[in-house]
Amino acid sequence: MKAEIICVGTELLLGNIVNTNAQFLSQRLADLGIDVYYHSVVGDNAERLEKATKIALNRSELIIYTGGLGPTSDDLTKEIVSNILGLEMKLDNISLEKIKEYFKKSNKIMTENNIKQAILPKDCIVLKNDVGTAPGVFLDYNEKKIVLLPGPPKEMNLMFNNYVVPLIKQDYIIKSKTLKTIGIGESQLEDLIKDLIEEQTNPTIATYAKEGQVDIRITGKDRDEETIDESIKKLVEKIDKVLKNYIYSYNNKTIEEVFYNLLKEKNMKVAFCESCTGGLVSSRFTRIPGASLVFDRGIVTYSNNAKITELSVKGETLNRYSAVSSQTAIEMANGLLSKSNVDMALSTTGIAGPSGGTKTTPVGTVFIGIATKHESLAIECHFSGDRQSIQDKAASKVFDEGRKYLLKINH
Amino acid sequence: MKAEIICVGTELLLGNIVNTNAQFLSQRLADLGIDVYYHSVVGDNAERLEKATKIALNRSELIIYTGGLGPTSDDLTKEIVSNILGLEMKLDNISLEKIKEYFKKSNKIMTENNIKQAILPKDCIVLKNDVGTAPGVFLDYNEKKIVLLPGPPKEMNLMFNNYVVPLIKQDYIIKSKTLKTIGIGESQLEDLIKDLIEEQTNPTIATYAKEGQVDIRITGKDRDEETIDESIKKLVEKIDKVLKNYIYSYNNKTIEEVFYNLLKEKNMKVAFCESCTGGLVSSRFTRIPGASLVFDRGIVTYSNNAKITELSVKGETLNRYSAVSSQTAIEMANGLLSKSNVDMALSTTGIAGPSGGTKTTPVGTVFIGIATKHESLAIECHFSGDRQSIQDKAASKVFDEGRKYLLKINH
Repeated sequence: MKAEIICVGTELLLGNIVNTNAQFLSQRLADLGIDVYYHSVVGDNAERLEKATKIALNRSELIIYTGGLGPTSDDLTKEIVSNILGLEMKLDNISLEKIKEYFKKSNKIMTENNIKQAILPKDCIVLKNDVGTAPGVFLDYNEKKIVLLPGPPKEMNLMFNNYVVPLIKQDYIIKSKTLKTIGIGESQLEDLIKDLIEEQTNPTIATYAKEGQVDIRITGKDRDEETIDESIKKLVEKIDKVLKNYIYSYNNKTIEEVFYNLLKEKNMKVAFCESCTGGLVSSRFTRIPGASLVFDRGIVTYSNNAKITELSVKGETLNRYSAVSSQTAIEMANGLLSKSNVDMALSTTGIAGPSGGTKTTPVGTVFIGIATKHESLAIECHFSGDRQSIQDKAASKVFDEGRKYLLKINH
Repeated sequence: MKAEIICVGTELLLGNIVNTNAQFLSQRLADLGIDVYYHSVVGDNAERLEKATKIALNRSELIIYTGGLGPTSDDLTKEIVSNILGLEMKLDNISLEKIKEYFKKSNKIMTENNIKQAILPKDCIVLKNDVGTAPGVFLDYNEKKIVLLPGPPKEMNLMFNNYVVPLIKQDYIIKSKTLKTIGIGESQLEDLIKDLIEEQTNPTIATYAKEGQVDIRITGKDRDEETIDESIKKLVEKIDKVLKNYIYSYNNKTIEEVFYNLLKEKNMKVAFCESCTGGLVSSRFTRIPGASLVFDRGIVTYSNNAKITELSVKGETLNRYSAVSSQTAIEMANGLLSKSNVDMALSTTGIAGPSGGTKTTPVGTVFIGIATKHESLAIECHFSGDRQSIQDKAASKVFDEGRKYLLKINH
């Protein structure tokens, strides 16, 4: 099945946003074994949207639109597509009720123009939107499949996974497995498994790098699920032999989720105290539903005074070794451990930049402290990138050091 | 001039990478006053690249390609474009010398196939690549301008800025202004400025919604900068009359940056204590370089015990009104204010979900507390969406309530 993705929105053509929708859909379609031949982006303009639609109908069998399903007059996708296909549009009462309910729930006023979102091509399959107002549309038309989805990624992703995938699945099976690594660069990693990458055709191996982490994605394709599982398993074993020390997840969990699960397994509680990461460690950890089971508190001590009063860091330590030092990281973690009734306290102190670096302590220097009832220690790290990138990498490293520590004390 | 961007590369169609080249070029072209009408992505495939090129030649006046200028046999852009336009290709000796030099400098071995990169359409303008091996191509063909650039963003960006811009510059100017709003839905907002949206052609108005916020982008185009400034100014005044209460920035700043700037202006210090937002408020605030100037500390009190010991919330308050109540929000903020030497303390307590909601306190309920030396108060909010969305909206709301409070005490 030849697929094309058409993303509708002037904000894309102005460069206001990057086209993550096309990437998401491309990845998912690749997983399903569907070849994507084209991406197209067109603005909120009737004439050009019509032209792009005609071109797509001429060359593609599966056409997925994102965007242009909003309530305003420049949202045109449904109208243009229905018009070209000669489909009548009518009010879908079930969708209208869902929209009304959505506004009621979120305490917002529904305006007249939101009704437009419930006017859909006759006889289409309505794709429910569980997190927004615009329903999606699935059309089976002259042996072509046409899918209209809203533009906001959160809505689009959920609707694609839940409602579109079952409608476009093929008769063979695709399965993917993602191994997640930390602490090794992409080219070094690829070099270590070069022979595996080169010799494999099914399953295939692809690597993706971002913010100090590299994911390895293994994808197998077959009519029989067991055959795929077996071949993926064998490949994972081979990769494991070379990269075991860098892999923290074999099932696409984030580093914070892996750390969370280990804590839960061991029935341990954790607390975080942060300087340079400014709350990011706590924030990422509490994105996890149920974080309260293992997380007690977090302290962001940005000023030296806060480090002293909140975490009992000694003024002398700050003077002698500075706030960015292993000594301070350890005292922060110890201070937090002794005031909160947790099993493990983790700390960060460093220089996220852009300014504040010195010759001996350049931007990107971060100390991570770990304290338990039995011991305390600090790890010195050096990260590259801008302020946000350094904060992100440091936060990931905190979870990874916590993870490695818990695995170590296991033995 | 109607422009189209064609990005060539199978890695885009597989979703291995996100198309940042299209975004970069779109932004730069918008700045130059050139309308981008289409983005197209096509794989490393001769037939489909040819089709896409014919479509583009038919509808666009400026066509910018990225990708497909590499040394390998699946790099086809130059060959396909030259073939369609009927242009002979020949070895460009100056480019070949530059490539040789590049390899010498970077201590790498030049292979035979790198010579291919110096074979260019006859009589084209060669675009120098100062940071890579593939030179670019500029063609003036039947009143159309055709630009071929390499795919790696670092090379492409530099070549576009240095060598393409002077070749495609127009004699009029484009300027944009973004107003940022919070607390009003997109359709309600558009309803309030419907007449302005409908009557405007230059400047134009467009709205973009995300996570409880709506941006209004005004774009003007003229030969004279002052004329644009004047017409944008007039339009902003009109929008301001209707939406003043919702607009927090007139120059595209984030809500946390606006709050940060107000605090700095007033020489005030702030501290945050968070329950349901779990550190997100502190984390977003400390993304700002120089946050330490106004930010002292943040406390994430996830357990009731942490609320009592860290923030002196009374056990009786938690029992009687529960942790998610205006009383608790106020006591949290007061507790933080009295222990840290700041001018303003802000708190959050609520239910981010997915579980934990009750009939009287459903998921999405959040109380925001504000404490200063003069008073303390709480605001009750109800947000929709999943856990992450509720946390995001609540954090934005904290900054907005802080902002409004500071503006109020100004008078």
